[in-house]
Amino acid sequence: MPALSKSILSKIKSLSIKKYRDKFQLFVAEGPTLIADLQLSHLKIDSIYATKDWVENNPKAPAIELSSKELTRMSSLKTPNQVLCLVEIPKYEFDPKKLSALTLVLDNISDPGNMGSIIRTADWFGVQNIVCSMNCTDIYNSKVVQASMGSISRVKVHYTDLVPFVKGCKDAFAIYGLVVGGKSINKEQIAGDTLLIVGNESKGISQELSSVISKKIGIDSFGGAESLNAAVATAIVCYEFNRVN
Amino acid sequence: MPALSKSILSKIKSLSIKKYRDKFQLFVAEGPTLIADLQLSHLKIDSIYATKDWVENNPKAPAIELSSKELTRMSSLKTPNQVLCLVEIPKYEFDPKKLSALTLVLDNISDPGNMGSIIRTADWFGVQNIVCSMNCTDIYNSKVVQASMGSISRVKVHYTDLVPFVKGCKDAFAIYGLVVGGKSINKEQIAGDTLLIVGNESKGISQELSSVISKKIGIDSFGGAESLNAAVATAIVCYEFNRVN
Repeated sequence: MPALSKSILSKIKSLSIKKYRDKFQLFVAEGPTLIADLQLSHLKIDSIYATKDWVENNPKAPAIELSSKELTRMSSLKTPNQVLCLVEIPKYEFDPKKLSALTLVLDNISDPGNMGSIIRTADWFGVQNIVCSMNCTDIYNSKVVQASMGSISRVKVHYTDLVPFVKGCKDAFAIYGLVVGGKSINKEQIAGDTLLIVGNESKGISQELSSVISKKIGIDSFGGAESLNAAVATAIVCYEFNRVN
Repeated sequence: MPALSKSILSKIKSLSIKKYRDKFQLFVAEGPTLIADLQLSHLKIDSIYATKDWVENNPKAPAIELSSKELTRMSSLKTPNQVLCLVEIPKYEFDPKKLSALTLVLDNISDPGNMGSIIRTADWFGVQNIVCSMNCTDIYNSKVVQASMGSISRVKVHYTDLVPFVKGCKDAFAIYGLVVGGKSINKEQIAGDTLLIVGNESKGISQELSSVISKKIGIDSFGGAESLNAAVATAIVCYEFNRVN
């Protein structure tokens, strides 16, 4: 069993920081289910580090075998799970003219769990593109990767300056902003090519972006909570969009 | 400024463990927004520990003032926020005959973030009762309390043995199980007094409980994800229930 070199370990550890993910153009994914999903996807796997169990079950995968203790040293999980791999960050062409149906536009979504959940939900509902403001949490952060459950390989996520992007879409898209107290999605039929803007978990949609929205929509409340979780609210609109279209 | 006694600190620290929450019948809540919400609720606040800023803004609250450093020592948050309080665990009468409309039944929901999100969603959609299996995560766990955003004071959560409970409800309720691949909620109208059973994040609904379900329902998929997050799927059914009823 080859010992894990210090330089490899320090490279993997560095990938918990965005600067180094950008430098190496790699991100970390962990666990057998997620990695099986990524192996079937278009993403390119750079290297695989796995314990004996996993290697025996995946004899064709070019894995580097190591001990549980070594895996624990490189993992960001509380309970490391058999296998960790480095994956090349994909490059997607971003052409607003090619967007269609429902596109999610995320303004400063900061919680990695929410980001992962939104990507997974988008994948379920067939949303192909998510456009993020530059200050959204990075989707190759390990918490986002793990929460997205492999959907990160199917949904294209782009980072851009949202104000010019949304302004440029005004003629071809209906531009909706999801806000507490917006017009009920049961009264406002969301149809056709649509951008759905979702704001920060506590601050909502930024003022500059708010002024570009055509219509503010919301979800009827029947109880006492002040708001819904951002990922939950996004999911409900995705569901409603698919229901009526 | 009174120094924080060792015995108080150790009591507060012990409340991170369910055994001690049960013993003292207390749980911990943190942060000005959550505590303002709880102060307006029917829950009884046992004691408040706060920094000078909070005390000055809440002159009538019987708070014990302490330094930021002392608050950090008692807090379970990464960034403690001005105030921490101990709250009495409420006792709710649990009479299945008094349930009405939509009641959520959670079978072994284990992620505290999901549990908190489900409670918050239930509150938003006017769901008054949640019935949990004995092996669900404890709702007075600090992560659940923080994620529920005050909804924990408005939604009644009960823990019981689910199989006899659901069997006892057979005559008066429609019993739905939420499963991947279940009949689309767009084709099966969920109406009237309903129990919605939601299963564990990875294992789904237990076999014993599955046999008591009248109908398995699900959410149409349009993409590649294998499943939706449990809290997200629950929210979509709550939304749909309110939409059609």
